[in-house]
Amino acid sequence: MSKLVSSLHESIRLCGLRDGMTVSFHHHLRNGDKVLNTVMAEISDMGFRDIHVNASSLFDIHEPLIEHIRHGVVTGLETSYMSKKVGDAVCAGILREPVLFHTHGERADAIMKGRSHIDVAFIAAPASDDMGNCTGRLGPSAFGALAYPVADALKADKVVIITDCLMPYPLSNPSIEETQVDFVVQVSELGDTAGVSSGTTRITADPVALYIARLAAEVMDAAGYVRDGLAFQTGAGGATLATAMYLHRKMKERKIRGSFALGGITGYLVDMLEDGCFEKLLDTQCFDLRAAQSLRDDPRHLEISTIRYASPGVKSAAVNNLDVVILGATQIDTGFNVNVHTTSDGRIMGGSGGHTDCAAGAKLSMILSPLVRQRLPIVVDKVRCISTPGESVDVFVSQYGIAVNPRRKDLAGMLSERGLPLLSMEALRDEAERVCGKPGQIERGGRTVATVLDRSGKPLDIITEVKR
Amino acid sequence: MSKLVSSLHESIRLCGLRDGMTVSFHHHLRNGDKVLNTVMAEISDMGFRDIHVNASSLFDIHEPLIEHIRHGVVTGLETSYMSKKVGDAVCAGILREPVLFHTHGERADAIMKGRSHIDVAFIAAPASDDMGNCTGRLGPSAFGALAYPVADALKADKVVIITDCLMPYPLSNPSIEETQVDFVVQVSELGDTAGVSSGTTRITADPVALYIARLAAEVMDAAGYVRDGLAFQTGAGGATLATAMYLHRKMKERKIRGSFALGGITGYLVDMLEDGCFEKLLDTQCFDLRAAQSLRDDPRHLEISTIRYASPGVKSAAVNNLDVVILGATQIDTGFNVNVHTTSDGRIMGGSGGHTDCAAGAKLSMILSPLVRQRLPIVVDKVRCISTPGESVDVFVSQYGIAVNPRRKDLAGMLSERGLPLLSMEALRDEAERVCGKPGQIERGGRTVATVLDRSGKPLDIITEVKR
Repeated sequence: MSKLVSSLHESIRLCGLRDGMTVSFHHHLRNGDKVLNTVMAEISDMGFRDIHVNASSLFDIHEPLIEHIRHGVVTGLETSYMSKKVGDAVCAGILREPVLFHTHGERADAIMKGRSHIDVAFIAAPASDDMGNCTGRLGPSAFGALAYPVADALKADKVVIITDCLMPYPLSNPSIEETQVDFVVQVSELGDTAGVSSGTTRITADPVALYIARLAAEVMDAAGYVRDGLAFQTGAGGATLATAMYLHRKMKERKIRGSFALGGITGYLVDMLEDGCFEKLLDTQCFDLRAAQSLRDDPRHLEISTIRYASPGVKSAAVNNLDVVILGATQIDTGFNVNVHTTSDGRIMGGSGGHTDCAAGAKLSMILSPLVRQRLPIVVDKVRCISTPGESVDVFVSQYGIAVNPRRKDLAGMLSERGLPLLSMEALRDEAERVCGKPGQIERGGRTVATVLDRSGKPLDIITEVKR
Repeated sequence: MSKLVSSLHESIRLCGLRDGMTVSFHHHLRNGDKVLNTVMAEISDMGFRDIHVNASSLFDIHEPLIEHIRHGVVTGLETSYMSKKVGDAVCAGILREPVLFHTHGERADAIMKGRSHIDVAFIAAPASDDMGNCTGRLGPSAFGALAYPVADALKADKVVIITDCLMPYPLSNPSIEETQVDFVVQVSELGDTAGVSSGTTRITADPVALYIARLAAEVMDAAGYVRDGLAFQTGAGGATLATAMYLHRKMKERKIRGSFALGGITGYLVDMLEDGCFEKLLDTQCFDLRAAQSLRDDPRHLEISTIRYASPGVKSAAVNNLDVVILGATQIDTGFNVNVHTTSDGRIMGGSGGHTDCAAGAKLSMILSPLVRQRLPIVVDKVRCISTPGESVDVFVSQYGIAVNPRRKDLAGMLSERGLPLLSMEALRDEAERVCGKPGQIERGGRTVATVLDRSGKPLDIITEVKR
């Protein structure tokens, strides 16, 4: 009756994997993940070719994928985020087919509706029983929420749970249920949980970022959102997380109780929960181990699937209830279009993740960025790649001032009443060009190496080969 | 942004209900439910005709359905259980199309796979937020698990949550998520929670039933199942619940820790949990309010959907992990086929519920019944209606002795070694006939008023009209 099989090799064999099939992975172990690499090494050793990999995100630790691509083991990639190492290789043109970039929410919808078919889902679970009821909250590799693979488990033809901690049946409150699981494999370790908090999840010390963050908190306040019932999301890096700090101060000072904070959760948002600033946290991904611990222990800290978080194909998702979201950008253009996929010179180093979903859902979506980074202007005439369309963006905040999307005249009025420094995007672009010089004409063309999909699954932009 | 609508009437209008459509309901409020009646009265008042009702169970409180059937408002019924009042009317031939009787597990599978299409699901929820995240664990009408409508919510075209307790967004740990909900309606009351424990959920005082129960516990013991890790399910009535009492004594005496008890949960099973006899309870339906309270307060008491409980169409369900299930019968025949749908004279007064699913899943499935009831033999040559096929039944226990299915020679050996009184079904039938006289020839024929489906959704038997 047990679904335990002796090895990854055995599970791959029993799933009936064949050349040309699609396998999927999730990224809750972030840059500490060993599961994708171990499974793909086994698949390569078993001699399979032309495998498509659908991974909710890819980090630098997944560099071994590059060799699998070179050898024809992997010929297609779908993801929502790709960091620099794999990104550079893709931009060099090594992959046969263009990468498909989904948003987090659209990835879930694409899987649920069959636009992205998964033959075999490999799901790293820090604790599982032998029938496949599993969770990310328990076990030595506990990383917290197990939200991304929920869609994979529901729709993949075969589902393999990979765990380093087998628990007695029935495991309580599983994130993925036995109803969806074919096989369970026990391994010695899933990865290095220290890698979960890779990436910046601490409050920045950079004075420019802090200034921008403080300005962003002022915008929230001027727009009337610093009030009881606030629903809030922010990113984990730089100025975005620092905005939470300034918001925290305002909320404590005025004894304001927000409703919930959403999305990827950091220890900083846990502090705000414990301080009474929010009633609840809705968590799709723990950005650090303090968040994972809180998810396990605090009944106000709740796990939700990526479907409920951000899918555009359901009757309502949590992002639609957001008041404010604070987001970053690698570029933003005068039409408020945001690039989070590539560098200015077009090299892949990111992806929209939940960026596009939250911008579309929140009543106030704010992009925070310094005007210039590494001597390159961030505000440009036209972004190298559209990740989030300008129609979803309400406000851009930089150290030189704030630009409000012309379609939000209501907001512009409220901010200028408060005396906040408003400028047009064109003025901000001019200022950026004054500092850096006008950027060279963007050379497009060459082979398409990635297609960026919008929230409905239609192509929104492409990324082309970058010659070294 | 809110999904709140002003009235049931408005929700029905907004759902676009049309003549000929199917609406669904769940039965967690059992004989205290007012939601089905209120919604159907509104549908009738609005002038709809030819509506099909898919209800997980129908109780005597649902008697007003009979008038809706007479007036052509309702022309089709699907359910897993139908008590006497509606049953008698159906047997009199008032319904245009035969009732479709599902098992609890097959109902979930039929909905998930599209064999039973639902246009509008009406879901009574004791607590909900205004986006439809809802639970049965909280609120003044808390009835506990909200397991049956999970499939309805996932697959119905439109989903209406009906609640008498609106809570702030986001409600924690919803059984049904906003992703699936179209509208939320607030009403003054869902029903009478005293009706939840309608039906016998107390230990019987009948000495014959107690004797049978004690014998059944001996069978479990002789077969080696009274051991650490035991997974157990029992019914709520008569000898079946009393078996739990004798099992409880044995487990306490020998300090045995079972794994889990499954299914409809009574206060008695909560006692066993609290006494350390089981590690966990997996609950699909609270049979009394003590169970509902425990589900709310005890983290070892877990709610599961009917899909995970018993669906035959998933990769594994909890019933497949049962060691022992204790079930009742209105008739059992020499081929071990069990009738729980009709009386001896063919009148509908029940349904398989989870009977067939658990019998198929458990390693040891036992049927308990007195040999004779109200001067009618229970053991017969051929049951009036096959609810659970004999191939799923291992043992029949009566006050005259125990019959083991011939295909379980292993069991027969173990029981006779223990000196338990074994008899053939034929001998038990003879004894029943000696007491009651040979029953008259069963008259079949006439119009089919109900079709009983097996776990795969294929017709297993029919129920025909009964002239008064």
